[in-house]
Amino acid sequence: MTGNRLERLRQQMKEAGVTVYVVPSSDCHQSEYVCAHYRVREYLSGFTGSAGTLVVTMEEAGLWTDGRYFLQAERQLQGGPIRLFRMGEPGVPKVKEYVREKLTKGGRLGFDGRVMGAFRAAELMREAEEKGADTLMTEDLAGAIWEDRPGIPDSEVFLLEPCYTGEETSGKLARVRAAMEKAGADVHVLASLCDISWLLNVRGGDIPGVPVVLSFLCLTEETCVWYVRRQVLTENILGKLSREGIAVREYEKIYEDMETLAEGRRVLLDRKNVNSRLFHAIPKGAKIVDESNPTELMKAVKNGAELMNLRRAHLKEGLAFTRLMRWLKTRAGREKITERSAAEYLDARRREQSHYLGQSFAPICAYKEHAAIVHYSATEESDAPIKPEGMLLVDAGGHYLEGTTDTTRTFVLGEVSEEQKRMYTAVCRGNLRLAFAKFLYGCTGYQLDLLCREPLWQMEADYKHGTGHGVGYLLNVHEGPNAFRWKQPEEGETPAVLEAGMVTTDEPGIYIEGAYGIRTENELVCRKGAVNDYGQFMEFEILTRTPIDLDGLLPQEMTAEEREWLNAYHADVYRTLAPHMTAEEREWLRGATRRI
Amino acid sequence: MTGNRLERLRQQMKEAGVTVYVVPSSDCHQSEYVCAHYRVREYLSGFTGSAGTLVVTMEEAGLWTDGRYFLQAERQLQGGPIRLFRMGEPGVPKVKEYVREKLTKGGRLGFDGRVMGAFRAAELMREAEEKGADTLMTEDLAGAIWEDRPGIPDSEVFLLEPCYTGEETSGKLARVRAAMEKAGADVHVLASLCDISWLLNVRGGDIPGVPVVLSFLCLTEETCVWYVRRQVLTENILGKLSREGIAVREYEKIYEDMETLAEGRRVLLDRKNVNSRLFHAIPKGAKIVDESNPTELMKAVKNGAELMNLRRAHLKEGLAFTRLMRWLKTRAGREKITERSAAEYLDARRREQSHYLGQSFAPICAYKEHAAIVHYSATEESDAPIKPEGMLLVDAGGHYLEGTTDTTRTFVLGEVSEEQKRMYTAVCRGNLRLAFAKFLYGCTGYQLDLLCREPLWQMEADYKHGTGHGVGYLLNVHEGPNAFRWKQPEEGETPAVLEAGMVTTDEPGIYIEGAYGIRTENELVCRKGAVNDYGQFMEFEILTRTPIDLDGLLPQEMTAEEREWLNAYHADVYRTLAPHMTAEEREWLRGATRRI
Repeated sequence: MTGNRLERLRQQMKEAGVTVYVVPSSDCHQSEYVCAHYRVREYLSGFTGSAGTLVVTMEEAGLWTDGRYFLQAERQLQGGPIRLFRMGEPGVPKVKEYVREKLTKGGRLGFDGRVMGAFRAAELMREAEEKGADTLMTEDLAGAIWEDRPGIPDSEVFLLEPCYTGEETSGKLARVRAAMEKAGADVHVLASLCDISWLLNVRGGDIPGVPVVLSFLCLTEETCVWYVRRQVLTENILGKLSREGIAVREYEKIYEDMETLAEGRRVLLDRKNVNSRLFHAIPKGAKIVDESNPTELMKAVKNGAELMNLRRAHLKEGLAFTRLMRWLKTRAGREKITERSAAEYLDARRREQSHYLGQSFAPICAYKEHAAIVHYSATEESDAPIKPEGMLLVDAGGHYLEGTTDTTRTFVLGEVSEEQKRMYTAVCRGNLRLAFAKFLYGCTGYQLDLLCREPLWQMEADYKHGTGHGVGYLLNVHEGPNAFRWKQPEEGETPAVLEAGMVTTDEPGIYIEGAYGIRTENELVCRKGAVNDYGQFMEFEILTRTPIDLDGLLPQEMTAEEREWLNAYHADVYRTLAPHMTAEEREWLRGATRRI
Repeated sequence: MTGNRLERLRQQMKEAGVTVYVVPSSDCHQSEYVCAHYRVREYLSGFTGSAGTLVVTMEEAGLWTDGRYFLQAERQLQGGPIRLFRMGEPGVPKVKEYVREKLTKGGRLGFDGRVMGAFRAAELMREAEEKGADTLMTEDLAGAIWEDRPGIPDSEVFLLEPCYTGEETSGKLARVRAAMEKAGADVHVLASLCDISWLLNVRGGDIPGVPVVLSFLCLTEETCVWYVRRQVLTENILGKLSREGIAVREYEKIYEDMETLAEGRRVLLDRKNVNSRLFHAIPKGAKIVDESNPTELMKAVKNGAELMNLRRAHLKEGLAFTRLMRWLKTRAGREKITERSAAEYLDARRREQSHYLGQSFAPICAYKEHAAIVHYSATEESDAPIKPEGMLLVDAGGHYLEGTTDTTRTFVLGEVSEEQKRMYTAVCRGNLRLAFAKFLYGCTGYQLDLLCREPLWQMEADYKHGTGHGVGYLLNVHEGPNAFRWKQPEEGETPAVLEAGMVTTDEPGIYIEGAYGIRTENELVCRKGAVNDYGQFMEFEILTRTPIDLDGLLPQEMTAEEREWLNAYHADVYRTLAPHMTAEEREWLRGATRRI
């Protein structure tokens, strides 16, 4: 099927004179997750992961994806005509290097400019230019061959009340305008859906798992125009927008409005998330101020109300997750449980909680060797029955009005090997070392990542993914700019300093192909610690409230300090969850959070 | 005295129309240490530290220095007219910010372009331009008022034989020329004295403690011209140079030769270490390729012969240092020992070793509260008598034909408080955690630094200096690009990836003003560890061979792993030193390296 689609794409390429065609994974907003309408790369390649780039030439086709998806992509591309390029592995060319190699003088690079970020597009166009090839960037060649392509959902927009956001839109707009002035800009174009939803205190349902509204926003000192599809707006929303002086225009009008920007306007935008077509619509006479959206940092730093809410969201999620844990550890082998039914059990426990809006991403419920596939998703065929043996990895999260959660636990359901326990213990030690770190203000996640990895590195083991990502508030569960990663940032990227109020996951793991996978993930909120002659110390508060399964641990391989940290965490888990549990549950929880 | 000199400088400034005059600490090669002739900043300010910038206006004068020198500068500037600016402290402006503030429209910025790096000069000139001021950069105003200014030494140059360098000049030149080609350059101007000495396999005595030769070098595909003062060359050297096709020109000729560079030449140079006058001598028609000198990374990565030699150098240094340790710990209180006599004792023990050439920097021998001054240097007045109590910090190093050493130990000479022991233990733990780290290839010292600092940070304590610096081979004891630091690099600086063969110090500390100071420093050479599916693991070998004083340790505050690391290190120390010691010394060493 994939082969046939590629052939039809090549037919299109031939007609347009395109010799190398690049298909990213994104929508018109550089979103990480996209609605079905925009899954062109998946349609063409059959690879369903969230991150990947397809490059098609007349002779070859290649798919680039990162370490989280190596095993999945291998499986999904197996036997097909598309070659897998494992990003970041030694000797593997980057997309732009491959494009450069494949382009020849007189050749033509093609891509859909609406779904390609302006920064990335410029990089590729530079490669083309240097090889004497030109670029065709308006045609959606791949979309043209897609029969029965899904439409864009028309989910209604809803308001997020001040008790959840902690700050009115007027206040946020004032802060953004002050940032524009500081950057020397008089126009600001926003394409990032999470940034726009945060700024306007609205949420929608245009992307599965990410409650945002497909839209653009253009801000000046006096005006604010929201480019959005009218059919998703209610009277209630229109009233709020009008009171806040926010004008509404049709979604597609942004392109022509950009073309009419006056000479000399100074336009603040982030070339990394404004699409290429939009960027090129801006007249040459305007000055581009290419910086991160001011909203990026603002929304990453959660305010007091958001943090209070998040603690409540994590209490609810903790109750659901802990109930799943108890069910699995007491019922596995006694009743029929599978990977999918376990995920469903967890979601049912969430639905018993108030203000639950849905899953924040497709849950990973992976038994035994399935857990070695970092982003495993159980299908009807793969759905493994769970027995009282081995380990089950559950990585899942929910959206509540009180915020978004993301938790991973690896449950020990019976006998596991000594090696598995050693690995489980090293993962847990790394998780604790990061969570209980103290550090001077100014450190970045690129530095702290090592604290987490060192116990595994001492065993000459590693996990091929970042240690953690920022978490949105009822937005994308992956959010920048904060992250824990050890690999050097790309050129032009500056690692973000950890600020009080930032929420980041702490999720080390270990994956042994064909055997097992382990990951332990908590969410950490950064906060100020002591301030003294040495400076401002920073530390973390753990938001997640679910026991770490003690049955996998070798306490003698932990330091006394690490054991004390875990005991302190478990005491917190017990203290917060117990009042909301039945006597029977409490009894069990006491055991699950016992001191070691 | 300082006030008088400043007034005479201001007279000069007035005559030249200069309103803000900047005096860096450097010579014409951006050397860290300089010979007496170039100590203009010290002459004007009275501050004797190796790093600092003086800025003089008609009304004010300020001195900028870093955390290593805060206490020393405070003392040396006390009561004088110069204000101390503590670099990196919150609220303290940078030199360029201060210069910007002080310059007014029509004002004039002045500095000696020969002793100011081109990169830094450009930054300052940009500030001037933005304020509508101009820049005068040829006049050495400060030098003009210096009566009895010392001359430049005429120390003879000597050859370093292949058994010490491990690579002939011809091989090094070929590697540099290949790097020039890769960078797209056809001319390469070298001003860094260490790089030139490394490249030509020569050493000299033009800077105290740094055996280099004041000179420039200009390389093309066919030619190599060494600009050097003839009087320091011997027949032997001239013969070698001639055989290698290296031409010799007078030192000062570099400036006029640069002016004659043809249009279109592509000149590779590092604006961070080429001086401003030299940089501006290059015609505008030449294209500047502003990159690090290829020699910087080449000389940082020690080859097999150099590493073999370094192990021998550290055996000799270890014998001297360990003998000092034994003498102090057995004789303090029984004979008259002072800070200066202890340093002298150490140097005498070095002189008993073969191939010893002299100290690699002014030794720091600091008793009790003196040790809180990070770069303390005992004077005749301050020279404290050493009693059998408290702690003595000794930071010292030597140059041998087999390489350069840098060691710090803090010796416990009698009763010390529980707090001191807790701090001593935390410093030792940090030192060991870094030394025994394993990490994947690609990590930088900006990441690894945290492993060392974390034990102190957990106690909400810190040291206001980097954790470590690269070490030259019979060159400057401070060498880039490798370093362990946690503070974010300046804009435009990229932290260096740790490569096998790089030698870096590991020297955490703690400094309590008026009370005590602790530092433990070993030199680490980076080497390849296991390679597996996760990638290439890297680790360190400890070069330094001197016991870490067990009398300061609280073993119960260390993890079992940390105790094992220390035991393994001490076993190594005993194994290498014992065969070279007397029976009595061996007996004592066995105790000093006992298992804990």
